[in-house]
Amino acid sequence: MNTPAAIGYDAAMQLAVEQAELVKGKTYPNPPVGAVILDRDGRVVGVGGTQRAGSAHAEVVALRRAGRLAEGGTAVVTLEPCNHHGKTPPCVDALLKSGVATVVYAVADPNPPAAGGAGRLVAAGVRVVNDVQTDLVVTGPLREWLHKQRTGLPHVTWKYAASIDGRSAAADGSSQWITSEAARADVHRRRATADAIVVGTGTVLADDPALTARLPDGSLADRQPLRVVVGRREIPSEAKVLNDDSRTMVMRTREPAEVLQALSDRTDVLLEGGPTLAGAFLRAGAIDRILAYIAPILLGGPVVAVDDVGVTSISRALRWRYDGMERVGPDVVLSLVPREPASGSVRNDRPGQG
Amino acid sequence: MNTPAAIGYDAAMQLAVEQAELVKGKTYPNPPVGAVILDRDGRVVGVGGTQRAGSAHAEVVALRRAGRLAEGGTAVVTLEPCNHHGKTPPCVDALLKSGVATVVYAVADPNPPAAGGAGRLVAAGVRVVNDVQTDLVVTGPLREWLHKQRTGLPHVTWKYAASIDGRSAAADGSSQWITSEAARADVHRRRATADAIVVGTGTVLADDPALTARLPDGSLADRQPLRVVVGRREIPSEAKVLNDDSRTMVMRTREPAEVLQALSDRTDVLLEGGPTLAGAFLRAGAIDRILAYIAPILLGGPVVAVDDVGVTSISRALRWRYDGMERVGPDVVLSLVPREPASGSVRNDRPGQG
Repeated sequence: MNTPAAIGYDAAMQLAVEQAELVKGKTYPNPPVGAVILDRDGRVVGVGGTQRAGSAHAEVVALRRAGRLAEGGTAVVTLEPCNHHGKTPPCVDALLKSGVATVVYAVADPNPPAAGGAGRLVAAGVRVVNDVQTDLVVTGPLREWLHKQRTGLPHVTWKYAASIDGRSAAADGSSQWITSEAARADVHRRRATADAIVVGTGTVLADDPALTARLPDGSLADRQPLRVVVGRREIPSEAKVLNDDSRTMVMRTREPAEVLQALSDRTDVLLEGGPTLAGAFLRAGAIDRILAYIAPILLGGPVVAVDDVGVTSISRALRWRYDGMERVGPDVVLSLVPREPASGSVRNDRPGQG
Repeated sequence: MNTPAAIGYDAAMQLAVEQAELVKGKTYPNPPVGAVILDRDGRVVGVGGTQRAGSAHAEVVALRRAGRLAEGGTAVVTLEPCNHHGKTPPCVDALLKSGVATVVYAVADPNPPAAGGAGRLVAAGVRVVNDVQTDLVVTGPLREWLHKQRTGLPHVTWKYAASIDGRSAAADGSSQWITSEAARADVHRRRATADAIVVGTGTVLADDPALTARLPDGSLADRQPLRVVVGRREIPSEAKVLNDDSRTMVMRTREPAEVLQALSDRTDVLLEGGPTLAGAFLRAGAIDRILAYIAPILLGGPVVAVDDVGVTSISRALRWRYDGMERVGPDVVLSLVPREPASGSVRNDRPGQG
C-alpha cells in the first residue's frame, strides 16, 4: 500500500471545496460545506461534505472517516465550524473531542447563532488558521448561501443560451438546438442543485418546457427544483411544467421584487426566462450571476436573447465582470458577476464579530 | 555561466513557433517561419525568424547565430526548408553547409517551386523528421499563408467587438467604448501584422476611423496595413481613412468576391466592417476566422453587431468551431474557424509530393 503524501493547507482546502461542490443543492437549509482531516503528518485521512438537514455536518462526516488518526492532526473546513445546537450538536464539540490540534477554515460564519466557533476552539487551546483560500470558497460553493445570509433573499443565476451573435432563435423562431447536448446536460446538472427555476409565461406558451432536472439517460434526477412560472398570461392546464415530476408555483406577477420575496426561503434560484423576463430582472438589478452558454454559430435575424435592459447610452451599460469561462462540448460558458464585488469579503458584513 | 538544458523536438518547435509569431506580418511575400538550432547535445544554440523579403530566411538567421555549434546538431523549422533560388539561395544549401545531422520540420512546403527540400536533405544523408507539432503551426503562424497557397486568395479574419448580448452600440448609437483599452491595444497589434484592413463606407461615415495600427503610446506602428474602403456610397475627402498615415484603396463595390480578387496579392486581411459588410462576407462564405471581442456588459436595444447572415432556420445556422478563447483585460476574445477543418493537413493538398 502506498503511503499518501503530506499536503499543505491550500491543497487540502481545494479538496474540501470539491467535497462541498458534491453536496451542493442537497443540504438546505444548511450551507454546503466540505471538510478534510489531515493526520499529524499532514496526510489526508478523512474527507466529507454536509449531509441533508438534520444529518451530520461536513466536519463530523470527515472526522468519522478519520477516526483515531485525527488526533494531533488538522481539520480543514470551508466554513468556520458552527457553535450552536441546531438539529445536530455543534461541530466545535466534535472537533474538540476528536483531538485535532489545528483547525483551518476559509470563511467566517456570518450567521450570529452559529458564529463564535473559532473563538471557542482558540479558548480550548486549538490552533486556528482562518482566511485560507477564502476567494475559492466565496466565489464557489458558498456563493449562494453567503448571498442569502447577507441579503435575506435568494441568489439569482440567470442562465441563457445564445448564438455567438446573441440570438436565441433563428428568424423563423426555431431554436432546437442552439447549444450542444453537452451544454444541455450541464444545465440539467445545475437544475438539480438549484432550489427553484423561474420562467415567464411566455416561455411556457412558446416552448412548453418540463423544467425538470434530468440525468443523461433521460430519467429524473433524485432532487427536483421547485418550478416557478411568473406573468399575467394564462397557461394551459396540460402544460408540461404542471406535471407531477416536481412541484410548481404559478405567480400572477412579473415584478422581480415580488418573485424574490415569494422565494425568500430559497437560496439558489435559476432564472431561465426569455428576453422579457430576463430584461425585467436585469433592470431591477435582481440578477447576481449570468451564465451565458454561447454556441459557435451565427444566426442573425430578429430573435435576440436579450431585449430591453433599460440602457439607452453606452455610459449606462450594465457592467459585469467575467468570473469564469470554460468549454462545454463545442460550446463555451461565460460566467459573469456584477462588477462591484458583491461584498467578496463577507467578514466585513458580519455583525458583531471581529 | 549556466549550461542550458537539452530540450526535445516538441519544445524546440514551440520555440520556433514563437520566433515565427515575432516576424508575422513582416515577411511578405515569404511565409513567417521560425527556426531553432540545437547542438549535438540538444541544447539551443541559435534561434531566428524570416526577415523581410530579399533578406535571410529563418534557418539562415538561426544558423548564423549558432555558428560552428550547429555541426552534428539539429535544425528545427516550422516549414520544410526551401529548395529554390528566389531572392536568396535555397535554405537547404545553408543547412547542408552547416553540418547539421538532423532537420526537423512541422509542415511540408505546399509551394511547388520551393518544395523538395526534404528530399534533397535525405539524399545528402541528413536525417529528416517531419510532422512535429504540425497543428501548432497550421493553426498558428502559417495559417494565413497556407490558406493563400491553397486557395490563391487572402485569408480573411473578421474582427468585431460586441457586448455579451451581441450589440455593437447602445440604443442611441453610442459605442465608445464597448471593449477595454487592453482589447483595443490587441486590435492595433493585429492590424500591424495584417496586410490589409477592410471596412464598408457605412463604418467610415459613422465612425470616421483612421484604421491605422498604433502603439500603446498613440504613435504609428512601423508597418501600416493597406486600408480598403468598399461600398457604393461617397466618402468625404477629409475622412481620416484617406489621410497620409497609410495607403488607402477605395472600391466601388461590396461584393466579397470582387474585394478578395482585388486583394489577391495579399495574405492576411482583417475585416473590420459593420453588420452589413460582415453579413455580406458571411453569406458569401468569405470569412476564414472570426475574432469576437466580447465585453462583459449588457446593452440591449436595436443595434446588433451581426444583422442578416442569410439564415432563416436553426438547421441552416452558420456553424463554426471555437479554436481559442482568452481574456484580454476585462474582455474575452473568442476565436472561431469554420467547422469543416480547413484542410488542416495541408500535405493532402500538395500536388506531386508524397
